[in-house]
Amino acid sequence: MKHVTSRENALFKHLKALTGSTHARRKAGQSVLDGVHLAQAYLDALGQPVQCVVSERHYDHAEVAQLLRQIEPERVVLLADALFDLVAGVVNGIDLMLVIDTPRGHLPSHIDTDCIILDGVQDAGNVGSILRSAAAAGIQHAFLVTGSAFAWSTKTLRAAMGANFHLNIVEHCTLDMLAPRLAVPLLATSSHAQAAVFDTDLRAPVGWVVGNEGAGVSPEWMAKVSRTVGIPQPGGLESLNVAAATAICLFEAVRQRRPG
Amino acid sequence: MKHVTSRENALFKHLKALTGSTHARRKAGQSVLDGVHLAQAYLDALGQPVQCVVSERHYDHAEVAQLLRQIEPERVVLLADALFDLVAGVVNGIDLMLVIDTPRGHLPSHIDTDCIILDGVQDAGNVGSILRSAAAAGIQHAFLVTGSAFAWSTKTLRAAMGANFHLNIVEHCTLDMLAPRLAVPLLATSSHAQAAVFDTDLRAPVGWVVGNEGAGVSPEWMAKVSRTVGIPQPGGLESLNVAAATAICLFEAVRQRRPG
Repeated sequence: MKHVTSRENALFKHLKALTGSTHARRKAGQSVLDGVHLAQAYLDALGQPVQCVVSERHYDHAEVAQLLRQIEPERVVLLADALFDLVAGVVNGIDLMLVIDTPRGHLPSHIDTDCIILDGVQDAGNVGSILRSAAAAGIQHAFLVTGSAFAWSTKTLRAAMGANFHLNIVEHCTLDMLAPRLAVPLLATSSHAQAAVFDTDLRAPVGWVVGNEGAGVSPEWMAKVSRTVGIPQPGGLESLNVAAATAICLFEAVRQRRPG
Repeated sequence: MKHVTSRENALFKHLKALTGSTHARRKAGQSVLDGVHLAQAYLDALGQPVQCVVSERHYDHAEVAQLLRQIEPERVVLLADALFDLVAGVVNGIDLMLVIDTPRGHLPSHIDTDCIILDGVQDAGNVGSILRSAAAAGIQHAFLVTGSAFAWSTKTLRAAMGANFHLNIVEHCTLDMLAPRLAVPLLATSSHAQAAVFDTDLRAPVGWVVGNEGAGVSPEWMAKVSRTVGIPQPGGLESLNVAAATAICLFEAVRQRRPG
């Protein structure tokens, strides 16, 4: 275990950079996971982190001790309380964070299973919620088109609640990269759709194209969509949050595919 | 039209208090709606606001002009740019806000139609998304049990996108207030449910009890629930965002109730 008590320590400086800026995280290819829940989700899914950072005051906390037992001792960094406060994000009760190498998604040459394509979803909370729903629905691939929120930001990670570790997430995708590889029909929701999602056969694999909160799916992606589907809204408002609409579609597919 | 250019103006001071604190909004019984979209949603649903506040720099903006044509001139307040900046929330392009009397929900003596009961949903974004899904699904009543986020905060209003104006929202509800009036069976989601929501008959009116993000439905409300339902999650994570899970349930009911 390393014990860090100086602001001049290189490891502390690195941690401060990572927690302070998305740019630094992207450049280093590393992410920071806040709190015991996310840390446990990572350990369960992907194994050892680069580092596990805990504050002096919480080193003896029962939940911290339980987590530290799963981590190789040389990866543990004990940080002076005052230093921890300088890098901590949300105060969530327990001072613990993991530094991880951001998993690098792979772009399959032939995409013939369910996937979601985020076409400019801007809000990190929405991206996180969509990743969480996709992982729960058993989807494997999430392709984030340039313009979508960063999948590994603190806010996205918090909203996704560990779903990041169960999906193949590929960022900075473009239409040109994806289109030739996609061997599934693409679907998107639309208020002008001819058929309701409930009347659409979703038993075979599909790719869901999810658009921007305000503008919806971009014209270039809409041109690739095989079918638009509507969500009947008896309240007459014709408006659902993008993460809520995506959950409804993904779980309508789950419903249709149940055995029996 | 009033033209306000001084920080000492009573109307400006009132506006500053309302935009600065939830407490002030609750005390005054007024809310503030930011931006053209929410303002139009309010006008369409509920008519004239108390005031419509615009900045000098955006008074001639086409979208502002279009909105002002629908508002009685004595309700319009033109605010000096520097003063507007002191009260503005999110920068969203167009400086316009409505001050409204917060609609007061009514507690029906006999609740025999669909409703949602928010039992300590803490995140304003989740509360807003749930209200939006409920309004889209045609639900009339939203009962917020003490401990839930404020339905008329800036963040909730933004996430609800006007749903607040289409629902009967009653805050500060307690079990004792609601239980004797509820004439519909109560349902809640649970990962230990005996039946999937897709196998549950939802054609008659129900009350959905939606619990806290971390702790779920409280024991006192769970004791009133007639049936728990599960959302099958083939990804095996047993975890969905509360607003996503609610959307899936509400729209499964919509699906089951479609004619034909």
